[in-house]
Amino acid sequence: MGASQSFRAMCDREKNTNIRVSLPAVCIVWQISMIILFGIFIRYDAESDAHWLEKKPKNISAIENDFYFRYPSFQDVHVMVFVGFGFLMTFLKRYSFGGVGFNFLIAAFGLQWALLMQGWFHHLGDDGKISINVYSMINADFCVAGCLIAYGALLGKVSPVQLMVLTLFGVTLFAVEEYIILNLIYAKDAGGSMVIHTFGAYYGLAISWMLYRPNLDQSSRLQGSVYHSDVFAMIGTLFLWMFWPSFNSAITEHGDGQHRAAINTYLSLASTVLTAVAVSSVFQKHGKLDMVHIQNATLAGGVAVGTAAEFMLMPYGSLIVGFCCGILSTLGYIYITPFLEKHLKIQDTCGIHNLHAMPGVIGGIVGAITAAAASESVYGTEGIKLFKFPPAQQGGHQAGALCVALCFGIGGGILVGAILRLPIWGDPADDNCFDDESYWEVPEEEESIPAVMQYNNHMRNKDVAESNFTMDSDTRPRA
Amino acid sequence: MGASQSFRAMCDREKNTNIRVSLPAVCIVWQISMIILFGIFIRYDAESDAHWLEKKPKNISAIENDFYFRYPSFQDVHVMVFVGFGFLMTFLKRYSFGGVGFNFLIAAFGLQWALLMQGWFHHLGDDGKISINVYSMINADFCVAGCLIAYGALLGKVSPVQLMVLTLFGVTLFAVEEYIILNLIYAKDAGGSMVIHTFGAYYGLAISWMLYRPNLDQSSRLQGSVYHSDVFAMIGTLFLWMFWPSFNSAITEHGDGQHRAAINTYLSLASTVLTAVAVSSVFQKHGKLDMVHIQNATLAGGVAVGTAAEFMLMPYGSLIVGFCCGILSTLGYIYITPFLEKHLKIQDTCGIHNLHAMPGVIGGIVGAITAAAASESVYGTEGIKLFKFPPAQQGGHQAGALCVALCFGIGGGILVGAILRLPIWGDPADDNCFDDESYWEVPEEEESIPAVMQYNNHMRNKDVAESNFTMDSDTRPRA
Amino acid sequence: MGASQSFRAMCDREKNTNIRVSLPAVCIVWQISMIILFGIFIRYDAESDAHWLEKKPKNISAIENDFYFRYPSFQDVHVMVFVGFGFLMTFLKRYSFGGVGFNFLIAAFGLQWALLMQGWFHHLGDDGKISINVYSMINADFCVAGCLIAYGALLGKVSPVQLMVLTLFGVTLFAVEEYIILNLIYAKDAGGSMVIHTFGAYYGLAISWMLYRPNLDQSSRLQGSVYHSDVFAMIGTLFLWMFWPSFNSAITEHGDGQHRAAINTYLSLASTVLTAVAVSSVFQKHGKLDMVHIQNATLAGGVAVGTAAEFMLMPYGSLIVGFCCGILSTLGYIYITPFLEKHLKIQDTCGIHNLHAMPGVIGGIVGAITAAAASESVYGTEGIKLFKFPPAQQGGHQAGALCVALCFGIGGGILVGAILRLPIWGDPADDNCFDDESYWEVPEEEESIPAVMQYNNHMRNKDVAESNFTMDSDTRPRA
Repeated sequence: MGASQSFRAMCDREKNTNIRVSLPAVCIVWQISMIILFGIFIRYDAESDAHWLEKKPKNISAIENDFYFRYPSFQDVHVMVFVGFGFLMTFLKRYSFGGVGFNFLIAAFGLQWALLMQGWFHHLGDDGKISINVYSMINADFCVAGCLIAYGALLGKVSPVQLMVLTLFGVTLFAVEEYIILNLIYAKDAGGSMVIHTFGAYYGLAISWMLYRPNLDQSSRLQGSVYHSDVFAMIGTLFLWMFWPSFNSAITEHGDGQHRAAINTYLSLASTVLTAVAVSSVFQKHGKLDMVHIQNATLAGGVAVGTAAEFMLMPYGSLIVGFCCGILSTLGYIYITPFLEKHLKIQDTCGIHNLHAMPGVIGGIVGAITAAAASESVYGTEGIKLFKFPPAQQGGHQAGALCVALCFGIGGGILVGAILRLPIWGDPADDNCFDDESYWEVPEEEESIPAVMQYNNHMRNKDVAESNFTMDSDTRPRA
Repeated sequence: MGASQSFRAMCDREKNTNIRVSLPAVCIVWQISMIILFGIFIRYDAESDAHWLEKKPKNISAIENDFYFRYPSFQDVHVMVFVGFGFLMTFLKRYSFGGVGFNFLIAAFGLQWALLMQGWFHHLGDDGKISINVYSMINADFCVAGCLIAYGALLGKVSPVQLMVLTLFGVTLFAVEEYIILNLIYAKDAGGSMVIHTFGAYYGLAISWMLYRPNLDQSSRLQGSVYHSDVFAMIGTLFLWMFWPSFNSAITEHGDGQHRAAINTYLSLASTVLTAVAVSSVFQKHGKLDMVHIQNATLAGGVAVGTAAEFMLMPYGSLIVGFCCGILSTLGYIYITPFLEKHLKIQDTCGIHNLHAMPGVIGGIVGAITAAAASESVYGTEGIKLFKFPPAQQGGHQAGALCVALCFGIGGGILVGAILRLPIWGDPADDNCFDDESYWEVPEEEESIPAVMQYNNHMRNKDVAESNFTMDSDTRPRA
Repeated sequence: MGASQSFRAMCDREKNTNIRVSLPAVCIVWQISMIILFGIFIRYDAESDAHWLEKKPKNISAIENDFYFRYPSFQDVHVMVFVGFGFLMTFLKRYSFGGVGFNFLIAAFGLQWALLMQGWFHHLGDDGKISINVYSMINADFCVAGCLIAYGALLGKVSPVQLMVLTLFGVTLFAVEEYIILNLIYAKDAGGSMVIHTFGAYYGLAISWMLYRPNLDQSSRLQGSVYHSDVFAMIGTLFLWMFWPSFNSAITEHGDGQHRAAINTYLSLASTVLTAVAVSSVFQKHGKLDMVHIQNATLAGGVAVGTAAEFMLMPYGSLIVGFCCGILSTLGYIYITPFLEKHLKIQDTCGIHNLHAMPGVIGGIVGAITAAAASESVYGTEGIKLFKFPPAQQGGHQAGALCVALCFGIGGGILVGAILRLPIWGDPADDNCFDDESYWEVPEEEESIPAVMQYNNHMRNKDVAESNFTMDSDTRPRA
């Protein structure tokens, strides 16, 4: 143990995880920048401004404010971003603080920067001001989700300062990519299969590739779960799973579009659970289930139905999408993740390749096919106006959008990965990965100590030869 | 230890928990069946179809889509089904994976089958198609809740394959029973005291009676909680408790009916908490509270007010219902559950008899009395139309509905229990009950190991020349 | 251990925590009182009464019932009160049951009493009846929140009977204070910075001062967290953080007011996270983060923006408020809490002074300044009617309201503290503070025992007379 300790100390000397200057500096400087930029650019929009009362059309009552028709969806998305993603990343035995805590930090920063970036691209008025409302808040949460997905690949291997940098660039890239896909290519992507999931996942995987750690197995004893950390992660899984219908319907058109998006997502996710369980069981000894698959692969159907959720995918179509993704995603955890690590040097802590990257690409393809197959008989003369172009052309645009998302993800990830390789960010040594000790004051685990201490005291005091003490309540961990 | 192991191995030979063929087969075959049946039968309804835009009445705006007035309630019910029921069943020290995970699996399957079964009975159009919308999704979640309640009695004693069978038959029985109660008898049961809780609970109890295990005390060391598993269970309790007003109001008539149902449930549940605490305290040494009562009995008021929630029960009436149920349910945990196990051979892991069966029956009776006591002076000329029949007759129909629920629950449970006794389902031996090891890859508890390993190292280095014991899996904290 | 045990037994004799008579008696008597008072006073209001269908204006449809525009906000607030506050208080290693359980108990009682108290002051009709609806339910939850804040200062040091007394008086004082502030002074306080947070926090701190325990350090080994209890507490933190926009907007005017309140709170909270992290990091060795700060100080921005949330605070103004509060609140945990304990004899378990008291006062001041700075050019001719008085005068009224909240909090706390000092409430001895054993049946921690038992068995069998190994830090389960 002494040897191990001095080795660890040596590593610490090589890799300095002291972020006492850099983290506060980044947080304070960036937050002050946000205040200044918000002061210059951000204003309430018409529906959230106090002038609304006098300016609103006379035949509209206060309860027709869009707040009432978007806010419940916003809150569901908000829960997914903070509790869903946050708790999904608590599964590691000794990185739960980092999982949920850093998720909290970068989401809180990212949403501010997203309001600005998305505002400049989408909501800049003639007066040079950005108008925000509940719709902007949903979009900001969406934008942040892309960066949180990327964090999943890097969980336990980067410093919070690196995560802040990742988020700054990630949000920026996201806003540009989103503008190209939605406003230049005119592709539809209500649930963000391409814009959010494909981009976010490849962004994270590319960064992970740039930050490859060949000797990571040193800390492999910490790269796993314990019983209770797996239960914590299920909180994240379930809140993501339950609220995904809100995610995919949150920014679609009012009326049948939102209604249909929720139904499609609900069905796709239900189907995914069954095939994820089936594949997990068939690949384990005695048919035992693996918590990694239940926590992650069960969500793949929500990702894959994102683009097409508002389309006339049909209920059975949603089930089919979910069916395929549950199988593919679980197989990904079994075969592809080890392959990526071994042969492509991509270390993917949470397996985002299986949960976001592949299903995201599938979602883009499903969207392209569904759009290309659209017809007025299915959508009606009004409904078909959902698409800007005739079906075949729209399908092409959808496919183009998928390529844009991939390029931005991979290209941006390589760029940002290069920046994050600079030796100034306080990232942990291989030996300290997946360990909250690097960045958190971790409480001592007093619980398990007393029993052993009690025993030791006893051993010192007694002549063990005649020892006949029994296990009474005092020697239990919790006296 | 060796003896124990060989005994356990012997049991394992007798009872084979290998579900590597059966579980995947059931999941895949049933999911493919769902896809085919959905392809044949299930379509979007008018409000979720893309034709809505052109077909909707001209004076209706997009924000009057029923989606906006049911979806928040749906999401609350959804949280109750997956997080509420799921986490309530994590209280066992070593069955948290099975509690929350199998709940997830059977709910995801059940809701698909429920959409079909309930659709055939309630929403089959002239064209032979079932139209689904957000209202159907709420009803599917309700239907699933019945099966999850039944799972509570069997927690830790059945295999996931058995649970899938239980759910298939449970949903089928539920749909028939619901059709009889609502559409033939014309009883009212907005919150499902009879349709969901009474049926589900007696269905589970009857199955448990059929699957009686006389030697279950062998695994009694696992049939309890640890500190943190009790806190996990409180997540389930609280989400059930908080969202119960949504549960009881989700499918009532728009307007005052939903409003009143939420208020009544809110009040009844508040009252239950106080009496559950009171009875829990008075029956323990030093007045200490028992987590089992706090986790479960505090919810009884929500069950018992289910049928009458939309009636003019009056606020004080709701308090009285909650008051009585808190007392009765807690007494049930103290006296009736042990009695059922000892004398009636019904083993009820979660005590669903106290949380769902008794309060469900009370709810049915309260509903019958309240309906029989209805008058035009209390309900108004429009409000009284809530009931199809004159008050006294309606009261009789309500009582009849309760009998139907009881018969379907007990009869169906005996039937399904007989099927589940077949020795083909991979259920665990008595010795392996309440243990996730049977069906899950459980992570090793590394945390507690170092102390022992350290000791072992020490022993090897010191003069213990004859010592040759090694650290095998049996000596680990979690054998 | 024997000596320690007899000492503990002696303390127990001095301080009798037996509440087997008092707790049930209080619960039952008070609940029966609630039933009687509800029977006399509480009725459904027009929108939740069955007569609504015939009495409602003809041009209003059922979906314009206020239920649909308040209920989602109500549910968010409800989650904050029961899961948010409840789980935030699970952070102690051995008081999680008491944290979440007693929170549950007093909230369930408090909301009934609040419906009565607030009803008498605000909703008493000419017929002497109180009409309740979803709006009343939100207000009742708000009222309860004040008492739960107070509980935070006393966590682990009081008996549940004392908490019931605290809640009875707290709700009573709250209703009077609220009436004075809103209906006599005509101050605005939508999110309750003054009415809820300032009042609740000083009420709790004053009680804690009255109940000062000079020898509390005896139980200091339990006054900390363990790894998993900190993760549980993050559930509370995140649900509070996410739903705070609903809290601050729940009872504001329909339309732009609610919309703006949600935006302002969303932004203020985001800003707080970054500065709380920055200050936490800069004050720890190696820049490590402290979970206490992340769990609590990140919420201060929501408190501080409460009063002004519905005002035209402007997005950058919200960020500034959050910025300052994140810094101040974290510094409070580092410097002020120890100071209060040492020099002012105020023991504040959860640090409510930093999370609620200071930010609440800041919120009141921000509200006064913002109101005083209001102008028709910013608010519009209709919007400015939000305030009853001209801006400067309104600012004065706001400041006056803050003083009222402070006086009621401190004065009421001293009064109630004096009552709670009576030796009849079953509060724990210093040695038993922060320990669930006093009031809960705590499950035995079987998990950690086998290792020690195994070891003991081994020791009995082997001759290790010369054994003198000691327990150093390396042998602990988590080095």
